Amino acid sequence: MKAEIVAVGTELLLGQIANTNAQWISQQLASYGVPVYFHTVVGDNMSRVKHTFQTASSRSDLVIITGGLGPTEDDMTREAAQTLLKQELIEHQESMAKIEQYYLRNDREMTVNNRKQSRVFKNAKVLPNTEGMAPGQIVEEDDCLWVFLPGVPSEMKVLMDQHVLPYIKTTFQLHSQIKSEMLRFIGIGESTLEHQLSDLIAEQSNPTIAPLASEGEVALRLTAAGNSDEEVHRLIDTKKQQILSRAGEYYYGSDEITIEEKVRDLLKEKELTIGAAESLTGGLFMERLISFQGASSVCKGSLVAYTPEAKEKVIEVPRFIINDFGTISEECAEIMALNAQRILDTDLAISFTGAAGPDASEGHAPGIVYIGIQSCNEPPEVHQFHFDGSRNKIRHRTVKKGFELLYHHLKNK
Amino acid sequence: MKAEIVAVGTELLLGQIANTNAQWISQQLASYGVPVYFHTVVGDNMSRVKHTFQTASSRSDLVIITGGLGPTEDDMTREAAQTLLKQELIEHQESMAKIEQYYLRNDREMTVNNRKQSRVFKNAKVLPNTEGMAPGQIVEEDDCLWVFLPGVPSEMKVLMDQHVLPYIKTTFQLHSQIKSEMLRFIGIGESTLEHQLSDLIAEQSNPTIAPLASEGEVALRLTAAGNSDEEVHRLIDTKKQQILSRAGEYYYGSDEITIEEKVRDLLKEKELTIGAAESLTGGLFMERLISFQGASSVCKGSLVAYTPEAKEKVIEVPRFIINDFGTISEECAEIMALNAQRILDTDLAISFTGAAGPDASEGHAPGIVYIGIQSCNEPPEVHQFHFDGSRNKIRHRTVKKGFELLYHHLKNK
Repeated sequence: MKAEIVAVGTELLLGQIANTNAQWISQQLASYGVPVYFHTVVGDNMSRVKHTFQTASSRSDLVIITGGLGPTEDDMTREAAQTLLKQELIEHQESMAKIEQYYLRNDREMTVNNRKQSRVFKNAKVLPNTEGMAPGQIVEEDDCLWVFLPGVPSEMKVLMDQHVLPYIKTTFQLHSQIKSEMLRFIGIGESTLEHQLSDLIAEQSNPTIAPLASEGEVALRLTAAGNSDEEVHRLIDTKKQQILSRAGEYYYGSDEITIEEKVRDLLKEKELTIGAAESLTGGLFMERLISFQGASSVCKGSLVAYTPEAKEKVIEVPRFIINDFGTISEECAEIMALNAQRILDTDLAISFTGAAGPDASEGHAPGIVYIGIQSCNEPPEVHQFHFDGSRNKIRHRTVKKGFELLYHHLKNK
Repeated sequence: MKAEIVAVGTELLLGQIANTNAQWISQQLASYGVPVYFHTVVGDNMSRVKHTFQTASSRSDLVIITGGLGPTEDDMTREAAQTLLKQELIEHQESMAKIEQYYLRNDREMTVNNRKQSRVFKNAKVLPNTEGMAPGQIVEEDDCLWVFLPGVPSEMKVLMDQHVLPYIKTTFQLHSQIKSEMLRFIGIGESTLEHQLSDLIAEQSNPTIAPLASEGEVALRLTAAGNSDEEVHRLIDTKKQQILSRAGEYYYGSDEITIEEKVRDLLKEKELTIGAAESLTGGLFMERLISFQGASSVCKGSLVAYTPEAKEKVIEVPRFIINDFGTISEECAEIMALNAQRILDTDLAISFTGAAGPDASEGHAPGIVYIGIQSCNEPPEVHQFHFDGSRNKIRHRTVKKGFELLYHHLKNK
């Protein structure tokens, strides 16, 4: 079996965006063992789009097309494909109803070109787009499976996960079992982790071990191939236990979990509520926690105070602390955490104060950060850090470190 | 003139990396006014690489190829091209000497496959690689200019900047001046904007007009080519004025500016301070504003209250409002904005309350959002919206809409 990916859109050829859709789709197909032979990007030009589709469908069994399903004249994916497919385009009732409702609800007039977005091929399997307007579709014709997906990454990914990948797995009877597990670590550097596992990484074959570093975290992707579900599970589990026996204290979970969700889960499990007092992070800590579903039972709120006056007014930081120690100090972080716990009436509270830069603040170099944790009736703890990088890198590293501290605090509670 | 970009490498087809080389090269070519018609990615397979090169060189005047110049057996760009070009490959002395020196200096033995990296076409213009081993090369044959570059982005970029772009400019006698301006609009949909400008878009030539939609915003990129700086400025300005005479009320700035920065700039200019009261947005509004440098003089803080109790305690929302109207109501949004202004002692305050989903909240469907604005001594205003999408899409759309409302409020102040 051969697959290829075609992206339609002049914005890609102008370099305004990178073709990250092709990368993501390729990763998914690779994890199912589907070989991808080509990525093509073509602009919004009818004859070139048509020619690209013709080439792709004649040489591949599976062609995944992203983009060109929108309402404008530049969106021509459907029309170009129609010149090659032996079926007409019809309006998809549910999709059209959704578009009309959208305009009605938002009290805006729907221009006629929006109807276009609901058009699907007559024999298509229509994939409802919960994230946007234009539905995806799968069309099977002449030994080629055509998959049409919107170009907006968030819409494309949901349709791939929920519809396209399961469909492909069934249609192409993908036999061999492939299983991956992503082990996630926090509080250990990539090179230290690799050093601790160097012999395992050197002798890797099945499962393979691929380290992957991201901001403040490290992950290891184990991928095993075998003839049965049981076999691949056993391969992964054995290697996982070997790894965790050496670096288990930094491991917080597998696969799609994030450290924010892990902290939310631990709070729920232990029936604890949390609040925050934030200065340089500006609300980012609470924003991250609330972005995950189910936060409402554990998060009460955050007191975001950017100026010294707001810290006095909202977090009730006593003036003598601001005058004697400054707002970027252990003392300020401590009282911020204590007061957030009291004012928001929570079990735990975390505080963030520091200099995000680019200029020094109260005589502190950018990157100097204090994080305070106040937990139940325990004495408050304050940690000092010095982070490198730009203003926003420092702010994001601060919040990530806050989640790391909370995770280690909660798991031993 | 037509250009295209070919990337060679199985790692791209496995999704291990995104084809950011094609994006970057496209940006450079676009700024010179060179139209790019295709991007192709092909894996390390002789017959497919050969076929891809044949297609590209037969339809384009300029083919830029990245990757496949390394020492391993998988690196086959030169060998595939040789089957199509009528010239032999020879060892390039300077490049070979450099490779040998490298191994000598690092006290490592040079394996024989490293010689491969110094091979160039006999009539090529050789581009010395200061950042790595394999040189780049430019080969002109049968009305096609072939450019071979290493796949490592840092090496590729230096060779493009120092050699390829100047060479292309001379060879194709490109317009000496190219200028782009990105016009940014908020509060108008992509399809409505295009509808209003449909005749201008249909008749575009110089400048070209490229619409680009992103979350809650639309941008138009105008690109003009001419023989003098004055000419391209005049071309851009004339088209810009035509566009703004129709859709000027939605225009907020050009090029790199964001709506958050625009709001920050207006607050600074008018010497106004701002605070927020946030429920479903969880601190995201203030986080966005604070992420831009210079926010400290205008942002005081945000009262993030996720639960009804926290709204009572922190934002001082009276209990009767919570009981009689609920926290997702016009009344609640209004008092949140009013109290945030008072508690944080600011000129302006904005409030966000609503149902982010995925479940209904207090009987409201996900996406129902109220945004309140309290400005100086004016009566408060509250707007209701219904946003579509996932939990986080709703939260991000809510914040973007908040910035849109503040922008329109502030610019008329």
